Amino acid sequence: MKSLTINQIAAVVSGTVIGDGNLAITGAAPIRDAGAGDITLADDPRYASKLTDCPAVAVIRPLEFPACDKTCVVVSDVHAAFAKLVKFFDPPVRDTFRGISPHASISVTARIGRDCVIEPFAVIGDHVELGDHVHVGAGSVIESACRIGDRTRIFARCVLYAKTEVGCDCRIHAGAVLGADGFGYNTREGRHELSAQLGNVVIGDDVEIGANSTIDRGTYNATVIGSGTKIDNLVMIAHNNRLGKHNLICSQVGIAGSCRTGDYVVMAGQVGIGDHVDIGAQTTLAAQCGVMNHIPAKSVYVGSPALPIKEQLKNWAVLGKISEWYQKWKDMLRRIEHIERILHQVEVPEAPANSSTRPAAPATSSSVESSRRVA
Amino acid sequence: MKSLTINQIAAVVSGTVIGDGNLAITGAAPIRDAGAGDITLADDPRYASKLTDCPAVAVIRPLEFPACDKTCVVVSDVHAAFAKLVKFFDPPVRDTFRGISPHASISVTARIGRDCVIEPFAVIGDHVELGDHVHVGAGSVIESACRIGDRTRIFARCVLYAKTEVGCDCRIHAGAVLGADGFGYNTREGRHELSAQLGNVVIGDDVEIGANSTIDRGTYNATVIGSGTKIDNLVMIAHNNRLGKHNLICSQVGIAGSCRTGDYVVMAGQVGIGDHVDIGAQTTLAAQCGVMNHIPAKSVYVGSPALPIKEQLKNWAVLGKISEWYQKWKDMLRRIEHIERILHQVEVPEAPANSSTRPAAPATSSSVESSRRVA
Amino acid sequence: MKSLTINQIAAVVSGTVIGDGNLAITGAAPIRDAGAGDITLADDPRYASKLTDCPAVAVIRPLEFPACDKTCVVVSDVHAAFAKLVKFFDPPVRDTFRGISPHASISVTARIGRDCVIEPFAVIGDHVELGDHVHVGAGSVIESACRIGDRTRIFARCVLYAKTEVGCDCRIHAGAVLGADGFGYNTREGRHELSAQLGNVVIGDDVEIGANSTIDRGTYNATVIGSGTKIDNLVMIAHNNRLGKHNLICSQVGIAGSCRTGDYVVMAGQVGIGDHVDIGAQTTLAAQCGVMNHIPAKSVYVGSPALPIKEQLKNWAVLGKISEWYQKWKDMLRRIEHIERILHQVEVPEAPANSSTRPAAPATSSSVESSRRVA
Repeated sequence: MKSLTINQIAAVVSGTVIGDGNLAITGAAPIRDAGAGDITLADDPRYASKLTDCPAVAVIRPLEFPACDKTCVVVSDVHAAFAKLVKFFDPPVRDTFRGISPHASISVTARIGRDCVIEPFAVIGDHVELGDHVHVGAGSVIESACRIGDRTRIFARCVLYAKTEVGCDCRIHAGAVLGADGFGYNTREGRHELSAQLGNVVIGDDVEIGANSTIDRGTYNATVIGSGTKIDNLVMIAHNNRLGKHNLICSQVGIAGSCRTGDYVVMAGQVGIGDHVDIGAQTTLAAQCGVMNHIPAKSVYVGSPALPIKEQLKNWAVLGKISEWYQKWKDMLRRIEHIERILHQVEVPEAPANSSTRPAAPATSSSVESSRRVA
Repeated sequence: MKSLTINQIAAVVSGTVIGDGNLAITGAAPIRDAGAGDITLADDPRYASKLTDCPAVAVIRPLEFPACDKTCVVVSDVHAAFAKLVKFFDPPVRDTFRGISPHASISVTARIGRDCVIEPFAVIGDHVELGDHVHVGAGSVIESACRIGDRTRIFARCVLYAKTEVGCDCRIHAGAVLGADGFGYNTREGRHELSAQLGNVVIGDDVEIGANSTIDRGTYNATVIGSGTKIDNLVMIAHNNRLGKHNLICSQVGIAGSCRTGDYVVMAGQVGIGDHVDIGAQTTLAAQCGVMNHIPAKSVYVGSPALPIKEQLKNWAVLGKISEWYQKWKDMLRRIEHIERILHQVEVPEAPANSSTRPAAPATSSSVESSRRVA
Repeated sequence: MKSLTINQIAAVVSGTVIGDGNLAITGAAPIRDAGAGDITLADDPRYASKLTDCPAVAVIRPLEFPACDKTCVVVSDVHAAFAKLVKFFDPPVRDTFRGISPHASISVTARIGRDCVIEPFAVIGDHVELGDHVHVGAGSVIESACRIGDRTRIFARCVLYAKTEVGCDCRIHAGAVLGADGFGYNTREGRHELSAQLGNVVIGDDVEIGANSTIDRGTYNATVIGSGTKIDNLVMIAHNNRLGKHNLICSQVGIAGSCRTGDYVVMAGQVGIGDHVDIGAQTTLAAQCGVMNHIPAKSVYVGSPALPIKEQLKNWAVLGKISEWYQKWKDMLRRIEHIERILHQVEVPEAPANSSTRPAAPATSSSVESSRRVA
């Protein structure tokens, strides 16, 4: 079993020890998982109280922090320091494959850059161009005329349909499908005929695409994902969409065709967006949002149908009390009827018709009149 | 760089020129993407105003159209004409593979029709039957006893579990999984035991299935997709479902077990349908609909829980104003209380109990009485 | 065509015949699919009425059952009996592959147990450990240092990223991806930087994972799925989640990062759960639920945002009538205004300020006053 003293750890992570520097540490785990002998981490003073019940004997923490009875290693970047320790105690495994597997199927017309890795059973089609240091995972299929930039990693079992373009430094996770047909049909004589599928998918630089996500090709032009945008698992991005830069698209989001997003848009899980919708830059859509109309920049929308967060939270506050209010409405109605009956009995002189600038009680409001008839 | 004059374009698409027939065109792109030198398209007079800011120098458009200062090529089918031009300027790439790849794994008991394409690393199991002109993409797995009709294309990396049947002229996109176990369990002594998984999946003719969609096998019989039905990406169709013909099922829809749909049903994105629900023919379910009960034919349902569109839109209109009404309710309540106090002060004679055919104010409506006690 | 008499069937399923034991049966199908010559099943007395229109000539049924004019075979376990018959009439196909395919890519450092099946184009990475009777489907990729327990079946085209651990007796369906990166980023100088991805995925025993589902690796530790838990298709389970034992997670559920569930939790289709949420044991979340806060044990939550079922159903009952109530509110408001006008006309003496222990009508409730000013 590997072991480090707190002093050794402090040296590794450039930290300051508060407490017992000779304490032996045999593992690193987050607060909820840590056991005796472990060092844990607390990246925020709010978590200090959770340390009390945690059996870890030491903690990596920032300088600003409440008093703590565990031995502490104080650092400026808690996560960077903790990651080093996790890697020490449980080193990541190396990739199995190097170079070009003899079990891959590579077209003679493909151009492969320097130092690429192509794993077994990958398929590289005609006229594909791979930059330098590209890594294509086992079983991935890169169809004809695709272009992939330097240092991009395509994990196992992805499919890039013909003509897909991926920039540099991207990570495309297992099972992602880029460039399948868009879902556009013209219905003629009762049959749905597939519309043109002549465009492709164009992915910028530094983009990540999650496992089993799908991005369809454009009708005539490209479906575009801007540089720096990160897409989680099981996301659907339909044909002709143009996502801006540095978007964060969480899992199971679905974006119908021909939408546009500005830069730094955030969509939480399971958001759905109708077609031809524009989402302004820096806008956030909360989980399960349903969006059918354009949304301006720098806004936060919530709910389905989506509303600005302030409006929606106000609505939800009311809806949370709605069945309580339902009783009150019935009560109010009864009290109004009761008042009307009482007023009838005191023989109120009839207001002359239209004697006032305010509208008279409308026809639907017949209770007063009808109670008069009854009496 | 490829170039065509407007007159040449008109000849290719059988159109009529309005404007400068000698203008040189070097590309074709939709309004939002077009640049100088391009021809664009406008399939609807409503888009005429969007042409003003578009740098394209010419436009393919229908006869009925507002005045337009760009050179026009007038055609009867805008999209067919435009697709021809897109293909001219940016020709689609050909499939890399022809015939049966020596890198596919094909059972000796499989029967392969004429002119099939089987790409590398595809697996064709025992007793599989492929019709003529079937195309099985790279890495797709066609398990034992599957049957696939003429001209059907299975794209890369699909999995058809044993006994799956697919008709003619289908397109099954990358990553689709047909015939996995249904999600049915019997819980015995605390363990969930998988129910029988003896059925299969049967797909009609002219069906399209999107990337990474899944259709589970039936418990005892088939899960059936009717001919002409189109299914988008990441759709889940559970065991024992029977979808009608010519349905359009948009992305991320989930249909639980044992549902039935009529013909020409449309489900927009992220619709969810509970088990044992029947959806009538020609019914449309709006995006993110949640359906737990049968829905009649020719209806449009919206929302979760789903309601007929008219009802739901009426409800949503009210809900949009609900927090405003919340203030009004409180105001109404105060005014009622105020009136009750005033009435008390004018010493209204008590209504004799049950003196009227109308119900007296009920016990819960106690404010009038209690204010009397207080006063 | 295969055929069995009712007497033969009764012998096979250990049942009792009521009716014609010599009747010849040529197939077995559920009520909605059965034709003439078939035997069908009815597992619940409620379905007795559906037998009337079913052309099946006989029925497998439990002892407690209404009078039925079809020949019956009475058994104690209807489904077990019926499954036997379905298998007789339409035998399941055998797996095509036995043993280790010469077309698989297996690291020399991998340890393979006894009687494993590894299908063509599967990839087994360095230091992988497979137990006995493990079955790895065609094209599946088991990356370095994964461990898979005895009798577990990985269907075709799954991807297990490095270090994934799967227990015994699991079924991982086609296209599932275990161990891809979590969706966690630190945004620095406008760039989203991927957080640490040092954990793995750990699956207990007797777990089933549906087609194309994805489970991400933990940040520092494991994402854990408890033994006996069943996960449907297209489910997303994010990093650091810890699911309890015997959960049932239906299709298209999405669980954001760092959640925990107790044992026997049930989530219906398309449920979404925000991050850092704890769901108590034996709790059920209804379809399309949206959960942002901890939920106690043994509860049933419905809707988005999710509420306890009783509250939510009460709310929905009110919301179903909300546009009807909208008319009533407007009517009530008119009647209150009408009453206020009448009261003004009868020259009610002003209530002395603060003469009562009840609050006076507040400033916002100005109609009485304003109507006085107008009059």
